[in-house]
Amino acid sequence: MVAPLKVGIAGLGTVGAEVVRLIETQARVLAGRSGRGIRVVAVTARSKSKKRGIDLRGVEWAKDPMALATHPEVDCFVELMGGAGDPALSAVDAALGAGKSVVTANKALLAKHGLKLAKAAEKHGGALNFEAAVGAAIPVIKTLREGLAGTGINRVYGILNGTCNYILTRMEQEGLSFTECLKDAQRLGYAEADPSFDVDGHDTAQKLAILASLAFGTKVAQSAVYVEGISSIAPEDLRAAADLGYRVKLLGVAVRTAKGIEQRVHPTMVPKSSSIAQVMGVTNAVTIDGEGIPPITLVGPGAGGAATASAVVADIADVARGIRANPFGRPIGQLRDTKKAPMERHEGGYYIRLLARDFPGTAAAIATRLAEQKISIESIVQRHPNGGAAPADGKAVPVPVILITYATHEDAVRRALAAVQKDKVISGRPQVIRIEKN
Amino acid sequence: MVAPLKVGIAGLGTVGAEVVRLIETQARVLAGRSGRGIRVVAVTARSKSKKRGIDLRGVEWAKDPMALATHPEVDCFVELMGGAGDPALSAVDAALGAGKSVVTANKALLAKHGLKLAKAAEKHGGALNFEAAVGAAIPVIKTLREGLAGTGINRVYGILNGTCNYILTRMEQEGLSFTECLKDAQRLGYAEADPSFDVDGHDTAQKLAILASLAFGTKVAQSAVYVEGISSIAPEDLRAAADLGYRVKLLGVAVRTAKGIEQRVHPTMVPKSSSIAQVMGVTNAVTIDGEGIPPITLVGPGAGGAATASAVVADIADVARGIRANPFGRPIGQLRDTKKAPMERHEGGYYIRLLARDFPGTAAAIATRLAEQKISIESIVQRHPNGGAAPADGKAVPVPVILITYATHEDAVRRALAAVQKDKVISGRPQVIRIEKN
Repeated sequence: MVAPLKVGIAGLGTVGAEVVRLIETQARVLAGRSGRGIRVVAVTARSKSKKRGIDLRGVEWAKDPMALATHPEVDCFVELMGGAGDPALSAVDAALGAGKSVVTANKALLAKHGLKLAKAAEKHGGALNFEAAVGAAIPVIKTLREGLAGTGINRVYGILNGTCNYILTRMEQEGLSFTECLKDAQRLGYAEADPSFDVDGHDTAQKLAILASLAFGTKVAQSAVYVEGISSIAPEDLRAAADLGYRVKLLGVAVRTAKGIEQRVHPTMVPKSSSIAQVMGVTNAVTIDGEGIPPITLVGPGAGGAATASAVVADIADVARGIRANPFGRPIGQLRDTKKAPMERHEGGYYIRLLARDFPGTAAAIATRLAEQKISIESIVQRHPNGGAAPADGKAVPVPVILITYATHEDAVRRALAAVQKDKVISGRPQVIRIEKN
Repeated sequence: MVAPLKVGIAGLGTVGAEVVRLIETQARVLAGRSGRGIRVVAVTARSKSKKRGIDLRGVEWAKDPMALATHPEVDCFVELMGGAGDPALSAVDAALGAGKSVVTANKALLAKHGLKLAKAAEKHGGALNFEAAVGAAIPVIKTLREGLAGTGINRVYGILNGTCNYILTRMEQEGLSFTECLKDAQRLGYAEADPSFDVDGHDTAQKLAILASLAFGTKVAQSAVYVEGISSIAPEDLRAAADLGYRVKLLGVAVRTAKGIEQRVHPTMVPKSSSIAQVMGVTNAVTIDGEGIPPITLVGPGAGGAATASAVVADIADVARGIRANPFGRPIGQLRDTKKAPMERHEGGYYIRLLARDFPGTAAAIATRLAEQKISIESIVQRHPNGGAAPADGKAVPVPVILITYATHEDAVRRALAAVQKDKVISGRPQVIRIEKN
């Protein structure tokens, strides 16, 4: 009979409490699956007195995360405090340094310090598991780390932030503005009081950095990710996208190109028929393009106490079974430096929405500027405000013009639009959304 | 330095040849991920002389599968011959009996002899991995076996047969008959010359039996699966489904009910908005409903040489890493007997299409028979042939009537329809399709 795995949990919010509950209620199944028992021996959290609806009798209360991480009785340190810095960073580092295994749901910590922590895990022999850090119970880490172990990956992309997808879904379905939908998301608890981490794309960027490392064997580096958020997206963009057979999603995309691994987060037009376009509301999804095989898409809840706890417990069960995978799939020595592929060299189709001051004269001017940059136009649509009726005062009203380009380079688009703005033939700033093909 | 894992491969068709190729081309990544090398040391197949486009120099040719399975140099026996009986059965059994690990893509073998083989694996300490047996490279086995290790499963269901989904997709999109689409599927290589194994639902049933065992801890048993195929589905059923907000898919469904684990394969109406309804063509998908968490759906190619080989190689890499999971998630001693939940006690909504001889008199008669069985009708639609115009000869023409019921029992539906047929108010046999809610 193998001794049970002794677990210490730092952080007893919704996820932590649910982990404690699952380990108790699923004890028999977990023991059967792991070949040994799993027991919570010690915990710590900010407040000892808070009501959590779990039974902590017989469980030691450690005085702080560091004491728990280095507790001689703990085999597996479970970090559910969050945050890229201390106390999470020091505690995880100390646990790994002591040869313990670590399970964490902390994407920020991994995106910023993943390489250093993986080195510590490799050196001292502990596991570093983090299935819950990306897509909660969606098994995307396991799939990239183990399920596609022998398959080259060309691209991995997905909807990694439920808040943004909820907002874009409601904007599309109800024609509402970004601000209105954000307010609703905040009211429903889908968005934080300060929503910038989500809506500006940083949450997605952290998760993407982790997926990119697993997919391509690069050293995880949040700084290598180009980031744009969704706050500039207008209902008219979503309407135009729909008319053209697309939906707009905030995607994280990591893709192998001739210039290196591109990692980017931005609003993206995806074909309405694609699996990723069907994903609505707070649901997350990740698509993996493996060499020579059709895409694999994993869809499910990207957050929530029960879904996150499910992934954490599965990671603990893997530790109990003695599985020691390389945290990022490959040994540290095989991970390559992450060269940030410059966004200016990004190649793809573009959606461009402009307000033309004087159509059709302006259309010719715009077409000329695009032609100068060798950008081919797939379609151009002029959208009459007021159904095309002349304004009562006879003054020229800016006319929205929507262009779809064939594949071109980001810098060509930027140069062309700068020239158009200089020409003073448009009002305001052009809206640009990148197109991602299946 | 750990010695490389020595692999023997029986069966060198498209999948086997691709496995050999991947092990060679991905050698460095695989060694990095597994912590040791992987080397093909011996193979066998029906024809030694066939051109396969792979380099087998330095690889021993075993005289038959049994010789390979018991070859003293082989650590991991890879069975890619197929078939529920010999030579696959004896060879796999012998390899496990000799303490070797086995990787197989053979769903028929597992659905029929999985329990016996898992016992042999448990007794002698080898792994028995079969990710490729269900959904090829879609990581559904790993997800049920490891990824949701600590989460109770309430239901697992999916599109597990690409041939059927291809046929249903084309029938729906082009209004063609089953026979026409089957012929096209055969022409394109998506269906066998004898298509019954696919279109009658047996392929799906074998895969479902494997998933059910992993999800619910029951002893795998194909005989516990209720099976109906798609050959009775008519284009008018698909049109009616679309009008009602549904699509028809051949689903395998395993669900925990008060009467035990229900395992069933049949054409199913699913809400158009569900993830599973979006899956078109030869693509497969599996949805897992875990306790307390929103559904997780895995979508991807369910067949194909490269996709299947990808899963086989990942399984071999797990063997190389020393992972020994219980083949069906739990130790044999914890697997429960599979009691076949009787289909007559199935509870759910029903779509019923009848040809009424004399509408509306018949409608009243049908409504009475349903009421006798306490079946509540959610909607009833009469569809006029010829747009409702009276036939030229003045004779009464049978009128299609479509009923949707609220949740009821299968035996109530059967009794009601038997009574309706006895009343002689309808022509032909009623069409019945079960409805599966999200």
